[in-house]
Amino acid sequence: MGEQRYLLKPRRLGVDTHQELVVYMRGDCHVCRSEGFNAHSRIQVNVNERSILATLNVIHGDWLAPDEFGLSESAWHALNPQDGERASFAHAPTVESMSAVRAKIYGNPLRDAQFDAIVSDVCKGFYTDVELATFLTACASRGLDHGETVGLTRAMINAGERLDWRREMVVDKHCVGGLPGNRTTPLVVAMAAAEGLVMPKTSSRAITSPAGTADTMETLAPVALSIADMRRVVEQEGGCIAWGGAVSLSPADDILIRIERAIDLDSEGQLVASVLSKKAAAGATHVVLDVPVGPTAKVRSETDARRLAALLCDTGKAIGLAVRAVVTDGMQPVGRGIGPALEARDVLAVLQNEDDAPADLRERSIALAGAIFELGGLVAEGSGTALAAQTLSSGRAWRKFQAICEAQGGMRTPPLAVLTQPVPATREGIVTAIDNRVLARIAKLAGAPAAPASGLDLHVRLGDRVERGQPLFTLHAETTGELAYALEYLETHTDVIRIGEQSDRSSASQ
Amino acid sequence: MGEQRYLLKPRRLGVDTHQELVVYMRGDCHVCRSEGFNAHSRIQVNVNERSILATLNVIHGDWLAPDEFGLSESAWHALNPQDGERASFAHAPTVESMSAVRAKIYGNPLRDAQFDAIVSDVCKGFYTDVELATFLTACASRGLDHGETVGLTRAMINAGERLDWRREMVVDKHCVGGLPGNRTTPLVVAMAAAEGLVMPKTSSRAITSPAGTADTMETLAPVALSIADMRRVVEQEGGCIAWGGAVSLSPADDILIRIERAIDLDSEGQLVASVLSKKAAAGATHVVLDVPVGPTAKVRSETDARRLAALLCDTGKAIGLAVRAVVTDGMQPVGRGIGPALEARDVLAVLQNEDDAPADLRERSIALAGAIFELGGLVAEGSGTALAAQTLSSGRAWRKFQAICEAQGGMRTPPLAVLTQPVPATREGIVTAIDNRVLARIAKLAGAPAAPASGLDLHVRLGDRVERGQPLFTLHAETTGELAYALEYLETHTDVIRIGEQSDRSSASQ
Repeated sequence: MGEQRYLLKPRRLGVDTHQELVVYMRGDCHVCRSEGFNAHSRIQVNVNERSILATLNVIHGDWLAPDEFGLSESAWHALNPQDGERASFAHAPTVESMSAVRAKIYGNPLRDAQFDAIVSDVCKGFYTDVELATFLTACASRGLDHGETVGLTRAMINAGERLDWRREMVVDKHCVGGLPGNRTTPLVVAMAAAEGLVMPKTSSRAITSPAGTADTMETLAPVALSIADMRRVVEQEGGCIAWGGAVSLSPADDILIRIERAIDLDSEGQLVASVLSKKAAAGATHVVLDVPVGPTAKVRSETDARRLAALLCDTGKAIGLAVRAVVTDGMQPVGRGIGPALEARDVLAVLQNEDDAPADLRERSIALAGAIFELGGLVAEGSGTALAAQTLSSGRAWRKFQAICEAQGGMRTPPLAVLTQPVPATREGIVTAIDNRVLARIAKLAGAPAAPASGLDLHVRLGDRVERGQPLFTLHAETTGELAYALEYLETHTDVIRIGEQSDRSSASQ
Repeated sequence: MGEQRYLLKPRRLGVDTHQELVVYMRGDCHVCRSEGFNAHSRIQVNVNERSILATLNVIHGDWLAPDEFGLSESAWHALNPQDGERASFAHAPTVESMSAVRAKIYGNPLRDAQFDAIVSDVCKGFYTDVELATFLTACASRGLDHGETVGLTRAMINAGERLDWRREMVVDKHCVGGLPGNRTTPLVVAMAAAEGLVMPKTSSRAITSPAGTADTMETLAPVALSIADMRRVVEQEGGCIAWGGAVSLSPADDILIRIERAIDLDSEGQLVASVLSKKAAAGATHVVLDVPVGPTAKVRSETDARRLAALLCDTGKAIGLAVRAVVTDGMQPVGRGIGPALEARDVLAVLQNEDDAPADLRERSIALAGAIFELGGLVAEGSGTALAAQTLSSGRAWRKFQAICEAQGGMRTPPLAVLTQPVPATREGIVTAIDNRVLARIAKLAGAPAAPASGLDLHVRLGDRVERGQPLFTLHAETTGELAYALEYLETHTDVIRIGEQSDRSSASQ
């Protein structure tokens, strides 16, 4: 069959379709006609030994020559055609692993081999966005049992590279999201490395939040490190804070996360597989997890937190990781800033022991570093936080942090937004509730995390007394469009910070 | 805000992205910069009072002028910009009804108002393909209870036009798919209309099958009738066989069906809502449903068929439809042809009482028409099939069919495929099983239903004795690419027709 097929000349069209692979072909070209391709056909494009599966967009008109086909930026990079190479085409083969996904929809649990096939096909780009959404929704709706969660986690680890630090103990931490401004990672890495532990931290960018650790850290130092770079930084300083996506650890995770973000979905099984696959692939042996609980955090109740913690520990055990979960207060944002640069500023204030450094961010970092010191056997149970506090106040953590930033490519000053606008209290009273989700949404509308200086700065905390007209928070934005859009959203969500007659923390949990 | 926004000139790019609305914008244009748009941003495009939500593709390079933006064919038709009009842009508003979809994923049943909001947003094009897949998968995984099925059905009816034939009784039929070649509709309409019943039939195109009734009928007469055309045909002849999509009945169904097809998913609740919303919107009062059962049909067991039949009858009752379900044999394809034109040929053979007309197609049509005659009170219970047989053999049905085709715009001769290739038996023996799904897949790979002459002609039935080398079926294709691809698939699915030592129908149900 191959020799009968017509060949077309690839043309880079400069169309950014994000991760989706799209090719463009004239409806009247001989390939479309002979193969019977239509708009949205899934087709296989072959150049020498390389091939991709892509979605077809059909062109009417003559802005492509009859012997040409076009490629989106993503398709161009995936296929990587060389000068003079021409492509042949075929109908995309059936993605066989999708039948397991369909079976899951109807209640059949997925087995290890099926997860392997699904994750492998996902990494090869065989799944369309619609099929990825189907897989994620099926797993979220039906739920994943212990065996399935382990199966998915293992499949995700095996689909990518796995780092080996040649150390007996490699520590790591992760926060199970949902709490704006909870930027403890840079602090914990600095503390752990300062005390001699090895902590090669890979972080993700924001999924549905206004900032991920990688977004925040990027305003302080380069984070897109290669594995060789990470190894050098870790050899030298004992720790690093890198973006996980740059080193192809659990590559399926990055693909799945993009769709989870589009549908604003975080399911428990995916969450566990995502977190633990990244940790295991990064070579961690001992992991501390921060699980914030609150009515508007990702985990809403103590019961949910305990179940999730158990799930994380059990799955960790099954794949050979020592995991400790620390359930923390998720009633309100941590620190003041929400958005990459604003959170980075809070991190610097804590490291530098500034008088007005956010106390809550400091305390949480100490609790988590303390748990790592204990889990890692550096100190006896119960003595972790004392050591962590000392590491911070002595300036050891700050010196280590600077050294890590230098080793990653040079320390940066977080940017400031061009536009700021305070949002005042419309009445006097006591702050009785803060809606983390709405606050995060406002920071995102203001431009975070894509525009790193954007977001908001929170001026009040639960229980504070405020006067009418006193600023509750200040919006930061880099474009007027985004600022206006955040303000517009705020008009219909005026109770993002609730002000009542009396301080009543229990009312905040309704 | 509106007056501050920059305006861009629309340009029709001639890119066919199927139903998905896509707009193209230069990454360096002032709109992208000021609004903070990225590739895959969801944006709102406004021209005067009209607006659409679309997905953004960002262009690098200069094939769009700085003051232009591009539109896919679907976006161009939806926005319909007039000469000299310019467009303004904003971030797409949050699609609020998606929070109900997310809640459904986690087990919260959907209420009527939520279905109304979801279906209305779907019809307005507010849902991305990924969000549509999420909705469909959530409904399939969690299932829809009676109240939800009724709620979805009502919402789908209300979202489109609803025909009123000003008759006390309007009959209709529908086959709950899954059985290749089961093309009874044209026969039943002709029989019902010949006996004086009113049967304005709207049919869909193929969802996951090689031919829908509309695809088959289109090879015999025009089917894209307007409501006025349908009314005229029905006034004149008592019946019509039109494509439902041309008359905007239950428009959400057409959008959802495209995604169901992409992920090859047919869930029970969606199926009931799809079938009954179309029937109710088409103005039917009495509906007979054909539910084929077989190991490789859509409904696999008698138990499933009974449950589905009850669900259809109960939901019908709730929305004011008299429904009768006829459970039929779904062990093997009906008739000989699989594919639009090949099935049309079988229909003509039955209507014309030809000696070699497929007996199974004739019998099923008689059973269904008989059920309609009884449900409609034309004859006593038990006497329906006798009348139906008489309607056929007397030639009354054939004369009525020709009259309907003429009224719809003129009778056509179904096309013949350019390429045919017989597929021989590789051994002698008895045909013990036929895999309907694999057979349907082969017909689709050969080009059906997009290429109407394509598909396959089945030469054997369960229990037949075959010699080695005797043709089991013949492939029909319009392009060499599709023929080759069907043959390639066949190489790995050689047991599509199983040949054994003895006739054993029970072994076929394994």
